[in-house]
Amino acid sequence: MSLDLAKIRADFPGLAAKDGQIWHYLDSGATAQKPQAVIDATVNAMGRDYATVHRGVYARSANMTLAYEAARRTVAGFIGGQEGEIVFTRGATEAINLVAQSWGGAHLKAGDRILISTLEHHSNIVPWQMLRERTGVEIDVCPLTADGQIDLDAAEQILTPAHKLVALAHVSNVLGSVLDVPRAVALAHGVGAKILVDGCQAVPRLAVDVAALGVDFYAFSAHKLYGPTGIGALWAKAEILDAMAPWQGGGSMIDRVTFERTTWAPAPTRFEAGTPAIVEAIGFAAAVNYVQSIGLSAIHAHEAGLVKTLRGALQAMNDVRLFGPEDSAGIVSFALEGVHPHDLGTILDEAGVAIRAGHHCAQPLMDHLGVPATARASFGLYSDESDIAALIAGIERTKRIFG
Amino acid sequence: MSLDLAKIRADFPGLAAKDGQIWHYLDSGATAQKPQAVIDATVNAMGRDYATVHRGVYARSANMTLAYEAARRTVAGFIGGQEGEIVFTRGATEAINLVAQSWGGAHLKAGDRILISTLEHHSNIVPWQMLRERTGVEIDVCPLTADGQIDLDAAEQILTPAHKLVALAHVSNVLGSVLDVPRAVALAHGVGAKILVDGCQAVPRLAVDVAALGVDFYAFSAHKLYGPTGIGALWAKAEILDAMAPWQGGGSMIDRVTFERTTWAPAPTRFEAGTPAIVEAIGFAAAVNYVQSIGLSAIHAHEAGLVKTLRGALQAMNDVRLFGPEDSAGIVSFALEGVHPHDLGTILDEAGVAIRAGHHCAQPLMDHLGVPATARASFGLYSDESDIAALIAGIERTKRIFG
Repeated sequence: MSLDLAKIRADFPGLAAKDGQIWHYLDSGATAQKPQAVIDATVNAMGRDYATVHRGVYARSANMTLAYEAARRTVAGFIGGQEGEIVFTRGATEAINLVAQSWGGAHLKAGDRILISTLEHHSNIVPWQMLRERTGVEIDVCPLTADGQIDLDAAEQILTPAHKLVALAHVSNVLGSVLDVPRAVALAHGVGAKILVDGCQAVPRLAVDVAALGVDFYAFSAHKLYGPTGIGALWAKAEILDAMAPWQGGGSMIDRVTFERTTWAPAPTRFEAGTPAIVEAIGFAAAVNYVQSIGLSAIHAHEAGLVKTLRGALQAMNDVRLFGPEDSAGIVSFALEGVHPHDLGTILDEAGVAIRAGHHCAQPLMDHLGVPATARASFGLYSDESDIAALIAGIERTKRIFG
Repeated sequence: MSLDLAKIRADFPGLAAKDGQIWHYLDSGATAQKPQAVIDATVNAMGRDYATVHRGVYARSANMTLAYEAARRTVAGFIGGQEGEIVFTRGATEAINLVAQSWGGAHLKAGDRILISTLEHHSNIVPWQMLRERTGVEIDVCPLTADGQIDLDAAEQILTPAHKLVALAHVSNVLGSVLDVPRAVALAHGVGAKILVDGCQAVPRLAVDVAALGVDFYAFSAHKLYGPTGIGALWAKAEILDAMAPWQGGGSMIDRVTFERTTWAPAPTRFEAGTPAIVEAIGFAAAVNYVQSIGLSAIHAHEAGLVKTLRGALQAMNDVRLFGPEDSAGIVSFALEGVHPHDLGTILDEAGVAIRAGHHCAQPLMDHLGVPATARASFGLYSDESDIAALIAGIERTKRIFG
């Protein structure tokens, strides 16, 4: 099941060496590089095949509509959902905001409670704070275990019938911690709460089946899944989506408009006001097809091997603090004693190694860890041992510079 | 100032003949074809140059951030605005929803009034109806003149100090009617109202200078301006934008997040939660550069000539009803007696002529015109007399089929 890395890397023009220097891209958790298949799909959709959707009476527009709806089926199938359950959004952030403002705005009221966790990305914190502002709902924060996993034993203690929603990351973007989703679902449903899972970092690294997992809402973006920017998806159970009011008004999402009264189109169209991200949806499907052609079990095994190698190498340094669990999925955060992560990142960049240094849009987690920032290496299906060797060599060099 | 059509058409791969048949694309009002320059910018941004923005400590991410912010400057400059006044949105629809939900939600209350017009696109009707639902604000509808222009004399009679917002289309997507924006601004400001102009159909055809026009909000999309899908822009006066609360929460739009309290980044970043449409922003700027390289005065003159030719040819037929004013901008709606526009569109498609037939997301205008739908031909900078000849020949053929 090992990946043919040479072949895979050749699929990604963004990874090509420049001026003779190989680029060691270790920031796929921020955004993934795009395979040529996604770029080609984009070029064809923007050129040869370009037309609007849902409106044209001419063949090319009808074909584009078929391609757009086929993309919805592809994305739905990828996570074990039905096509009517996928809303295309600008990204995962908009998907969560849509749930907060449409579902949350209608179903949550003062006195109700939402449970999130200490490790959430801002996109799974701030929308709930904005909802709190609007409705008076309360937010509880589930603590983490010592190794940085969402502590579901603690969640079990916190949850009460006042909780109407549990919103948790499937994979932490900082620590790589993997949520035990079935248990989280059982706990949420046990008190009558719905559960939203932020799947941004999960879908590129783990096989996800929303039906088997039993979640109510699942949000993810295309650009972290080797697809285009500007598009993501909200999956929600059909009966939940059908009952949700639209959030944005405009073309396509209506049934009938008069100045007195407007009626809505069925879901998911009701949530897609205006001309959609047509080209991006087609690129999204191409990305899914690419990932499926390699296979998530192979990708997961590959990244798990890289994580093990990197954590082992970092553990062998006595001046490195490692965050997150041993079995983190594709993401390794660490701190080098006496060196600010930004300085480390800058020195690594000179050696052609791209990591992320910062708060990773997870400031509360930084507060919990007691650091302003971490250095983070995150893998993609194209990452290899040479990337890790270059990172380790760069860290050694940084230590010499600062030592 | 006449355009070099052969050269221009060669820039658009979407217009290339297929199987020997020339494609007569007369649906640029729905969405415009993309020049190779936009496709090339997209390919480079997705491949060779791809990285995230605003976050990376490595050079390629810093370069991408520069490119993204340069795109904002380009788009701002295109309409005479400042870069800090441009919010990148998914499209014009989201731009208007943002104003309705953020500015409208904060500033409008029961008893306040909004003035729109009979010819508005659903995207400039439904968001205000949703705001009415939420706040109890009232909506007034400005009637049209006999030839289908927004009747500003009537607006003057309607407007009162209770009106807090006037929201009008710069160019009608059905009739091509051009709003007298300076007069509309004077009327709105005369009663203390703000004015939002939907510029979707204007920016591809008219030189727009928001500062000179004096508007408060200006919304438009990239895909009608020969740019990518999945992105548009809201321009708003800096002091208005600075005072607006964010609408969507997530990464990048914050200053500092704690579970107790979150503070916001300055505008426009505050309104761009999550990873932005990076590639699309760069393609948007490439589209603006392309349009500017040809020049809007030349484009406007070119399209005005085509409108005159087409209207003349249609007027010469005694069984065609023509809608809209003589000097409509780039868009001609009509009805062929005894033939449903969809049937006309389908027969035209067989001859390689693509028009739009439908309600054009303007059902209240259809009600006003007393038709369920119109046929609409809309031009782009690449349209030429051969497209009109093919359309007229197709209409003649349809008449023979239905006659």
